[in-house]
Amino acid sequence: MMPQELKKAVVLHSGGLDSTTVLAIAAREGFEPCAMTFIYGQRHIRELEAARSIAVHMEIRHRIEVDVTPGIFTGSALTGDREIPLNRSEKEIGEGIPATYVPARNLIFLSYAVAWAESLGSHDIFIGVNAIDYSGYPDCRPEFIKAFEKAANLATKEGAEGRRISLHAPLISMSKAEIIRAGVSLGVDYSLTHSCYDPSPEGIACGACDSCLLRIKGFREAGLADPITYLKRSEQ
Amino acid sequence: MMPQELKKAVVLHSGGLDSTTVLAIAAREGFEPCAMTFIYGQRHIRELEAARSIAVHMEIRHRIEVDVTPGIFTGSALTGDREIPLNRSEKEIGEGIPATYVPARNLIFLSYAVAWAESLGSHDIFIGVNAIDYSGYPDCRPEFIKAFEKAANLATKEGAEGRRISLHAPLISMSKAEIIRAGVSLGVDYSLTHSCYDPSPEGIACGACDSCLLRIKGFREAGLADPITYLKRSEQ
Repeated sequence: MMPQELKKAVVLHSGGLDSTTVLAIAAREGFEPCAMTFIYGQRHIRELEAARSIAVHMEIRHRIEVDVTPGIFTGSALTGDREIPLNRSEKEIGEGIPATYVPARNLIFLSYAVAWAESLGSHDIFIGVNAIDYSGYPDCRPEFIKAFEKAANLATKEGAEGRRISLHAPLISMSKAEIIRAGVSLGVDYSLTHSCYDPSPEGIACGACDSCLLRIKGFREAGLADPITYLKRSEQ
Repeated sequence: MMPQELKKAVVLHSGGLDSTTVLAIAAREGFEPCAMTFIYGQRHIRELEAARSIAVHMEIRHRIEVDVTPGIFTGSALTGDREIPLNRSEKEIGEGIPATYVPARNLIFLSYAVAWAESLGSHDIFIGVNAIDYSGYPDCRPEFIKAFEKAANLATKEGAEGRRISLHAPLISMSKAEIIRAGVSLGVDYSLTHSCYDPSPEGIACGACDSCLLRIKGFREAGLADPITYLKRSEQ
């Protein structure tokens, strides 16, 4: 007998705090995490370098970068078509769908994940969506995850032949502080992660966009020090 | 008042017989069809030229080509990883999932269509899937179309805010002969369409792959002449 090979799982990995925690969770659950990272015209392309460094640090053997055709994702602050909102209050962050919403992003990312999973012989996909301490993105809701999983099983040979594809969203009901505590307990090195939507040319986090504000608040509530540097920290 | 502008609809358009008929159907239903064509490593890339010629001929104003990252769609005869099956009987074509199945293809294509629709301000997407005279692809089933539509509405700002996205599959319960008759009545020029999975280097249809066999049978049953040339026509 060959030594037992771990079951592979595709993990959507942006290089941010949430998805990096998910890589560690997938490994703890006994999978070999295979990291899938997207280039989609995001202006915080700095996160791509983070994703690469993290994959090296965590010794990820299977990794793919997908370049989503430019021109598809328009109308979003994340792709440079609108201003990134800064210094919003917690209440504002929680209201409505923000300017950083990218049309159909998780729909496309998850569809690619299903295709790659079929190619790898994997039946498990992990995504770091989170319904608490998130930013009002419709494609992070549990209802969407459930509906997508159903569509994916109907769309594919694996699903059609009864080898069920499972979509895992382990962070879905965790607060940012809980995510950080879980990651620290699994040895995640958050100094390598990048969360900021609007970093300086040198890649320093702004400390004022929604993503920075949620991260800063998460570390504060977890009672832990955030190991990254910020240009300014409005709440500290 | 400005002259009334037609509502836009995104139409997935391969350059083949079915999706070209769908372009004409979307126009007849009062939409301005916007054509979306995918490059995904298909070896019958000849269909891309067909899609371009058809768009010019039909005076399509909005058209986009999406280049899906190579390396995602593996394991399929259509992307050159397996042999294209030839000269299969009708019974064989109807059995199981064929070698030409491409993992998660329609899942990815439709996800892009949703993103482009949001960018265009459109809420209607047309796809030429067909549950009769098709080839056993799971992602052409009505159950999949319905499940995807639900996921798309949950994933998007448009859906979340109550501006429903509709997925139209007008060919779903038509035979190939009925599709051809409908297209002819709408003025579709089938001489411009390309269906063959395995054309000659000059782009001539083989007459033996599943796609050619279904097309030849469709024209025969419709009592119409297929205006394209075949290298050989096994059944005539």
